[in-house]
Amino acid sequence: MRPVAVSMGDPTGIGPEIALKLIADPRRDAPVVVIGDAGRLRQAAATIGLGTLPITTIPSIDSATATPGVLEVLSETELPVDLEWGHVDSRAGRAAFQYVAKGIELARAGQISALVTAPINKEALRLAGLPYPGHTEILAELTGTGEYAMMLVNDELRVALVTLHESLSSALTRITVDAEHTTIRLAHDALRRAGIPRPRIAVAGLNPHAGENGLMGREELDIIAPAVQAARAEGIDVSGPWPPDTVFMRTRAGEFDLVVAQYHDQGLIPIKYLGLEHGVNVTIGLPFVRTSVDHGTAFDIAGKGIADHSSLLAALRHAVALADAR
Amino acid sequence: MRPVAVSMGDPTGIGPEIALKLIADPRRDAPVVVIGDAGRLRQAAATIGLGTLPITTIPSIDSATATPGVLEVLSETELPVDLEWGHVDSRAGRAAFQYVAKGIELARAGQISALVTAPINKEALRLAGLPYPGHTEILAELTGTGEYAMMLVNDELRVALVTLHESLSSALTRITVDAEHTTIRLAHDALRRAGIPRPRIAVAGLNPHAGENGLMGREELDIIAPAVQAARAEGIDVSGPWPPDTVFMRTRAGEFDLVVAQYHDQGLIPIKYLGLEHGVNVTIGLPFVRTSVDHGTAFDIAGKGIADHSSLLAALRHAVALADAR
Repeated sequence: MRPVAVSMGDPTGIGPEIALKLIADPRRDAPVVVIGDAGRLRQAAATIGLGTLPITTIPSIDSATATPGVLEVLSETELPVDLEWGHVDSRAGRAAFQYVAKGIELARAGQISALVTAPINKEALRLAGLPYPGHTEILAELTGTGEYAMMLVNDELRVALVTLHESLSSALTRITVDAEHTTIRLAHDALRRAGIPRPRIAVAGLNPHAGENGLMGREELDIIAPAVQAARAEGIDVSGPWPPDTVFMRTRAGEFDLVVAQYHDQGLIPIKYLGLEHGVNVTIGLPFVRTSVDHGTAFDIAGKGIADHSSLLAALRHAVALADAR
Repeated sequence: MRPVAVSMGDPTGIGPEIALKLIADPRRDAPVVVIGDAGRLRQAAATIGLGTLPITTIPSIDSATATPGVLEVLSETELPVDLEWGHVDSRAGRAAFQYVAKGIELARAGQISALVTAPINKEALRLAGLPYPGHTEILAELTGTGEYAMMLVNDELRVALVTLHESLSSALTRITVDAEHTTIRLAHDALRRAGIPRPRIAVAGLNPHAGENGLMGREELDIIAPAVQAARAEGIDVSGPWPPDTVFMRTRAGEFDLVVAQYHDQGLIPIKYLGLEHGVNVTIGLPFVRTSVDHGTAFDIAGKGIADHSSLLAALRHAVALADAR
């Protein structure tokens, strides 16, 4: 298979470390090329006790050999050696963006089978003059994708989000019939493409008890229910709006295949509740497969050698499974 | 000990059934008096196959004998026999309110050690001209309590809520420094009274990633952080605002004793995620101990004999523990 590209993420965070640990992990069974900074990766390897891992710079993706135990890197930057671990830095923000942009270019050209991204830092992006709230928005803009959504998957639960990285009060203004309908449709298509012939989709309400017939908010009656009806009319097996406080529990218990959540924390709280290790973030609606870890840059532990690469390994495996299913 | 009163809840829901099952359960080891409707309880007992359980009407709380296996009821209403199961009915709403009001009266008079409530239906209350959004607001009004909060407890997590039963957009307008500070203080006092000498309290942010330094909302900077500082200045071990999507997982893992959640579903989603059976709802700030089940009237299964009384048993046990600690 064509290699999977892993973008290194913010060079001052745990991205370089988890990329190194991923390559060194014998459980990794797919060919991987890292998009990042060769110098920074060598520096990280020395710092965290992986100094013996061979790191080879390749001039282009075609040169990748997929040799086990060797980290092949498309080195897009030449970062200064004095870049500190765990600090917001505009140079790191700009570099992290370049790695993602390169990955998107390769994916659109069909030269990689999937893009897997290590975490970036929004504040560093902003300092670099790149005020994206997250990876998803970068991916949507650089691919010209108008309809996309973030899906989160772990061993017990799948969630797709109607609104993303914005204040809760701003998110409330973006909950529209169109946004609901689009998210339901994208989630349905993504699950079908992932091998579930007739996905059962539950839509969470926005308000406590899903508004209780308008007693506590009208979004369920005016926005969510009409979107559910429209999607059902297209033949999608979707129901709701369901009371938010029980729909995730019911889905975990097997009643549904995925919950459409209205806002970031409604979906992320249950996804993360049982622990971070196995969470994967999938962007749906893109012209290629993209997955990501479900954690951040973890500046507090960067450069210490104690970061856990389980989520990156899970993101790689999920990407390979999705790419295979395509 | 003085008996615990269990209010029967909405007579058309599962309240009568779970009250009967509680009394019949050999695991129940505290004296209980039910406040409800003797006729309805007998009707329910016959319907669900507990027709042999003795049901005795007592004229006043002083007459309670705490005989094992006998349901002693303070019968406050004489409901018509044709009241249907699982239907919103103003007569049922009014009756449910009367049971709670009687329980409050007994608790304030010191004649019961705690009040445990079975579920009521807000729509039925509203039809009865009693537009309370929930038990908590009834309890606050009838006791003249200005500062109160809802705390939810299960085997893994404790949560106290800053805002309660209202639309999310309305809840956003009620997140004030005062409301935060009061909830932190009430939660701290409640945990101390429950036997935790120095409770570690985490306050959840409102916005994704706790606003990320104002990039996604300012409530954390302008409202929550100042309230946390004020509470710390009083000697309370409180921290935050923390990113909402990980603070519940961290608390479950043992880092904190309780999370102050900003709105209903932020707190309820993680509390319910692992299943409903053991959840207990505690009203904090009241002059007496009050706990409740963490589920609703379940009209869809009322009168069928299949309701699970585990949450009511957990609520009773929790009430007894809190009453003992006082």
